[in-house]
Amino acid sequence: MATTSKQQSRTYEPSLPNPALFTNEKHEIYLAESPELKPKPDECIVRVRCNGICGSDIHFWKSGQIGTLKVSTDYVLGHEASGSIEWIGENVTHLQVGDRVAIEPGVPCEQCFQCSAGQYNLCPDVQFSGAPPYHGSIRRYHVHPAKYLHKLPDMMSFADGALLEPLSVVLHGFERSPVRLGESTVICGAGPIGLIALAAARASGAYPLIITDVDENRLQFAEKFVPGCKAVQVVPDKTPAELGAVINDCIREAGGEQPRVVYECTGVQNSVVTAIHIPRAGGEVMVVGVGRPTIDGLPFMHASLSEIDLKFINRYHHSWPTAIRLLFSGYLDLKPLVTHRFALEDAVEAPTSSADRTTGSIKVHIEDNKE
Amino acid sequence: MATTSKQQSRTYEPSLPNPALFTNEKHEIYLAESPELKPKPDECIVRVRCNGICGSDIHFWKSGQIGTLKVSTDYVLGHEASGSIEWIGENVTHLQVGDRVAIEPGVPCEQCFQCSAGQYNLCPDVQFSGAPPYHGSIRRYHVHPAKYLHKLPDMMSFADGALLEPLSVVLHGFERSPVRLGESTVICGAGPIGLIALAAARASGAYPLIITDVDENRLQFAEKFVPGCKAVQVVPDKTPAELGAVINDCIREAGGEQPRVVYECTGVQNSVVTAIHIPRAGGEVMVVGVGRPTIDGLPFMHASLSEIDLKFINRYHHSWPTAIRLLFSGYLDLKPLVTHRFALEDAVEAPTSSADRTTGSIKVHIEDNKE
Amino acid sequence: MATTSKQQSRTYEPSLPNPALFTNEKHEIYLAESPELKPKPDECIVRVRCNGICGSDIHFWKSGQIGTLKVSTDYVLGHEASGSIEWIGENVTHLQVGDRVAIEPGVPCEQCFQCSAGQYNLCPDVQFSGAPPYHGSIRRYHVHPAKYLHKLPDMMSFADGALLEPLSVVLHGFERSPVRLGESTVICGAGPIGLIALAAARASGAYPLIITDVDENRLQFAEKFVPGCKAVQVVPDKTPAELGAVINDCIREAGGEQPRVVYECTGVQNSVVTAIHIPRAGGEVMVVGVGRPTIDGLPFMHASLSEIDLKFINRYHHSWPTAIRLLFSGYLDLKPLVTHRFALEDAVEAPTSSADRTTGSIKVHIEDNKE
Amino acid sequence: MATTSKQQSRTYEPSLPNPALFTNEKHEIYLAESPELKPKPDECIVRVRCNGICGSDIHFWKSGQIGTLKVSTDYVLGHEASGSIEWIGENVTHLQVGDRVAIEPGVPCEQCFQCSAGQYNLCPDVQFSGAPPYHGSIRRYHVHPAKYLHKLPDMMSFADGALLEPLSVVLHGFERSPVRLGESTVICGAGPIGLIALAAARASGAYPLIITDVDENRLQFAEKFVPGCKAVQVVPDKTPAELGAVINDCIREAGGEQPRVVYECTGVQNSVVTAIHIPRAGGEVMVVGVGRPTIDGLPFMHASLSEIDLKFINRYHHSWPTAIRLLFSGYLDLKPLVTHRFALEDAVEAPTSSADRTTGSIKVHIEDNKE
Repeated sequence: MATTSKQQSRTYEPSLPNPALFTNEKHEIYLAESPELKPKPDECIVRVRCNGICGSDIHFWKSGQIGTLKVSTDYVLGHEASGSIEWIGENVTHLQVGDRVAIEPGVPCEQCFQCSAGQYNLCPDVQFSGAPPYHGSIRRYHVHPAKYLHKLPDMMSFADGALLEPLSVVLHGFERSPVRLGESTVICGAGPIGLIALAAARASGAYPLIITDVDENRLQFAEKFVPGCKAVQVVPDKTPAELGAVINDCIREAGGEQPRVVYECTGVQNSVVTAIHIPRAGGEVMVVGVGRPTIDGLPFMHASLSEIDLKFINRYHHSWPTAIRLLFSGYLDLKPLVTHRFALEDAVEAPTSSADRTTGSIKVHIEDNKE
Repeated sequence: MATTSKQQSRTYEPSLPNPALFTNEKHEIYLAESPELKPKPDECIVRVRCNGICGSDIHFWKSGQIGTLKVSTDYVLGHEASGSIEWIGENVTHLQVGDRVAIEPGVPCEQCFQCSAGQYNLCPDVQFSGAPPYHGSIRRYHVHPAKYLHKLPDMMSFADGALLEPLSVVLHGFERSPVRLGESTVICGAGPIGLIALAAARASGAYPLIITDVDENRLQFAEKFVPGCKAVQVVPDKTPAELGAVINDCIREAGGEQPRVVYECTGVQNSVVTAIHIPRAGGEVMVVGVGRPTIDGLPFMHASLSEIDLKFINRYHHSWPTAIRLLFSGYLDLKPLVTHRFALEDAVEAPTSSADRTTGSIKVHIEDNKE
Repeated sequence: MATTSKQQSRTYEPSLPNPALFTNEKHEIYLAESPELKPKPDECIVRVRCNGICGSDIHFWKSGQIGTLKVSTDYVLGHEASGSIEWIGENVTHLQVGDRVAIEPGVPCEQCFQCSAGQYNLCPDVQFSGAPPYHGSIRRYHVHPAKYLHKLPDMMSFADGALLEPLSVVLHGFERSPVRLGESTVICGAGPIGLIALAAARASGAYPLIITDVDENRLQFAEKFVPGCKAVQVVPDKTPAELGAVINDCIREAGGEQPRVVYECTGVQNSVVTAIHIPRAGGEVMVVGVGRPTIDGLPFMHASLSEIDLKFINRYHHSWPTAIRLLFSGYLDLKPLVTHRFALEDAVEAPTSSADRTTGSIKVHIEDNKE
Repeated sequence: MATTSKQQSRTYEPSLPNPALFTNEKHEIYLAESPELKPKPDECIVRVRCNGICGSDIHFWKSGQIGTLKVSTDYVLGHEASGSIEWIGENVTHLQVGDRVAIEPGVPCEQCFQCSAGQYNLCPDVQFSGAPPYHGSIRRYHVHPAKYLHKLPDMMSFADGALLEPLSVVLHGFERSPVRLGESTVICGAGPIGLIALAAARASGAYPLIITDVDENRLQFAEKFVPGCKAVQVVPDKTPAELGAVINDCIREAGGEQPRVVYECTGVQNSVVTAIHIPRAGGEVMVVGVGRPTIDGLPFMHASLSEIDLKFINRYHHSWPTAIRLLFSGYLDLKPLVTHRFALEDAVEAPTSSADRTTGSIKVHIEDNKE
């Protein structure tokens, strides 16, 4: 926010040590005392209680880059977080010390065309906590503008609060490519985002509902997580067009029609190419997943002759209130996705566990229950 | 269909008597033997098993007119029907004798601009079974083009089959004004269409979910029918703007925001005017209900300053497959709406019961279980 | 803007007297020295050179109210203005003294949901220069936030600069209901907004292009202003449905089809009702005009059976850059609309002339060429 | 059309010889007597007067395949045609012998979901005159369903009539991705489709208007054809991202903003990749051009982070009436595109001339003025 950047900041001294999970350009990952916190009058100090690990955390750690964002200094990871308000700046009016909140990590400039046009997720000057060089929330105390802290209902757990960020990604995908009641829907990829998309599609009335993945264990997880969905394993000996046909056979057996929308939640080239072979003519692929800079073998003429559009999303905007309602109302229950939990002191193990597919982990949480 | 009109027809002789429920311009309603059935090669004879009574049936009977449609001859009522195939014309390929089907009553010309543009519901030459002068389905045997007969899954009851028509009205309203996952939604009117809209909004993930009506009994019914919805009674001593504020207070208490879309399901002037005072600026009122030719007191400047659009629907198109999936999958259970049932022999009592608000009837069905 | 409201302001002393055109709750209109100018660091002083008179100026003067906006104190009229920068606040970076600018009168809060969602025209806390109680621009010096001052190209006249505001109204209507290349289009009303809509529809490729009015002189003006358009006089002895048929006959004669969109630019009840009888089934009426609080006799069942949507607009957002390009490129030439000009010293005569239909005035401008 | 396929056909004997331009799987191109004409009662015989050569004609001839369409027999080329009615079938009511018409080559089944949903261009069973195995219109007499023959105004030339087909392609692209009045717009490719898109964008009010190509001559042609547009030559020593920046610099110099929509009219991999680097975040690339089956190097992460959607079109639907109006009204003048003309007797030279870039040909026409 342009306004805060002009404001005077002070140094905040927390009452407890403030261990933080860092990575750097040498691909190290380590726990160390957080940089000093210097809140401005529009900001708060959050006593962080829960953080989720995202694939992008692992990507920044292991490869040091996503798109144009490069790791060039030591910085604190984490952008899926919740906690309680420890301190408020003098201009903060809608929050009080002790309030339980979720952190919306991306802080847009609020002055550019994109911010003014309703798409603050596309702000070129967004300051995103946990994407380099901005320090993230995997620490005990985090400083953040009050406007991007969302109050949680009394009964909502910090774990649920930390799930609002990945849910926001899915909601933005659904906003740009809506699920329609009673329409067949395909989700490609049974990772955390794909599974949240699966649950959200079910809550939106999609039927039949298909999920695909290469990993049989994840598919079994999906069928338990959203009873009634159909899991289709993607096997390497079939072409994308053949896989598209297999998936459509499965839809037809369930009484459905060739889908209008396919949600691609892996960002993997093969999966994107396959996804384009699934929708009916005049349909679309909503690409939610991210991956390598370029894709080869895009089935251009198939997309052209069938008018299959490719749509993309980057993060989310205005999604937290809706996401809170969906968990609070019980319309969505995402808790089963949290398969592994670590204390803040053991935070280094969290991304390791998340990156290791043999652990069977879906979503890994770091909790700080100290005092 | 232009094609069938050129085809030669024959006379079909059913094995049982074919009693039919007639009305006429003298506002009589009576049971008498159906006109002869003269199927063409693209048509089928349906052994009708269930019919629902719609508000429009009562309107044609009691006032003799809806819009430009006038009752000028004796004709058979009924357009919410299901049954089984008794006979098929020589060109029919996708159905067999014995198949269980639901009847889509409106048969468009398939040649005009609207038919070609994907909106066959707006075809100016539609032949709608049960709207004068076209004979409807409240009889034992009904003739209908095969293309507008939709096969039912084995496990789906004829009662469910007869509910697909009012569900189609709601689905078309939702297609033109989509419900979004986790968004607050208001339904005005707890009659059959309002209650189906309520269930469909719940199945689409709307939250919080509000329903309004003047009738306390119907609101109690609604709260049992869709647990978790909030019922707001519309009382005569408040202005439309005040009622809008009351409804929004109720939404905010439930954690929601001023709604983007309001579904007006009564067609009554007061309710339409109130509905316009409910949405947030930039929102819309989807008018599903029908009523008198004109409306007075439309809050023009409020709609203008707040950019509240008014959208309307007339029937539906392409909705039966989706409607079938929604009932078959269990996503929607509309059976509780059928509060009263009559045998075909007692069909005259069905519209009487439906028109009498003291019976507490929601949806009245006529069943024919003979042989 | 919330940010400026926190800023310290100073008093600005102009080098010349600052006569301003006031109205008040006694329906007086008079010229007097402007209230003191107290610019903040984000604001500028504009040496105003041209102002247009709008129907709303006359409405505030004569009836003292539009919607919920009431004249309760003496305030300065005017919201269609251009001029040059006389002084800039210390935070202003994109403008310099001497720059020629157009004034966007509505200054939104930039903090509410509507501002953040891309619709700052719907901001409930907008401060609109020239709508009570905010002083407008019909004076020699005006204070305004720099962000809502738009730099004009060197060659663009101040008269063109003052036409950008009414053009913005039309552009917002076209954004919500786009004109499509080669489609028949109807404009109801040949006042300034209707005539600008006519020119903009022509520039968008609408064909055939019809304009209606009750006033034969205005229709003759229209046919000269946009050669090739067809003018249809609305006569009182025909019903709205009959008028709709007459207009469609005229379209068909010109090789067109029943229009999808009708732009209603009068806000008069009869015209709105007629407009609803013009579009094809599935079409829409974009109501650009404003008028009395409520409308009677809305053809509800016609709109319902034909799925004719009613859409509304309130002002505009993000429109100045586009409006500037359209005049600068010569795509639109709106100069012929300015039929009457008055010096600032004679400003009282401008609204009088504009309100008097016998003057043949379309758009009346107040120019200040002093020094 | 399903209906015609059931109809009895007869053999039509034309009064003159009926030379036709054939190609085959041996990549030969030759003139020979047309196959027999066997019109059905819903069909007409057209005395063809003008045919345009399309890039796809050359592609079928030289490479024998586009997408899944393969040349496997000798068939007649041509799908951009006009002429006069020579004979009408007994069911034809809207045309008379002597009427001047344009031929819409694609004849959909009118029974499938896509036909019923308003997108008959996506009908999987479309019979497209001039795409194998269906005989096209480059012959003296052609048989075609009356419904897909569009009557031309008296004053419209046959040459204009033959330009309606490529114009339809552009109109469909504009329908799916509308040009907005006063918005900057980029057209990639200055071949016939790109040049028509350029003229149509101008007629829609796009400003500034940019066209790109590798060929300097074509760019010079473009600047003459649509005065005021800016031509940008695509040079091989720049990356797609650099080219995107160059194009945006050019837009800014002309007073425009980064465009929302880019129309890609080449189908060439490099051009598609470059196009994705042009729009602003949240924009889209409308891919009108066709090309090789797959594309490599799609800038996936750029599209993802910037939410740049890729949209595609296949032909057109419901476009002829609009296209006729645009030429008839003078809003578009496409005649300058016809750079080369051949008599039907010399038809073999037409595709040769069109394929040879050294001829400077844009659109090549075959005219038959015999008697």
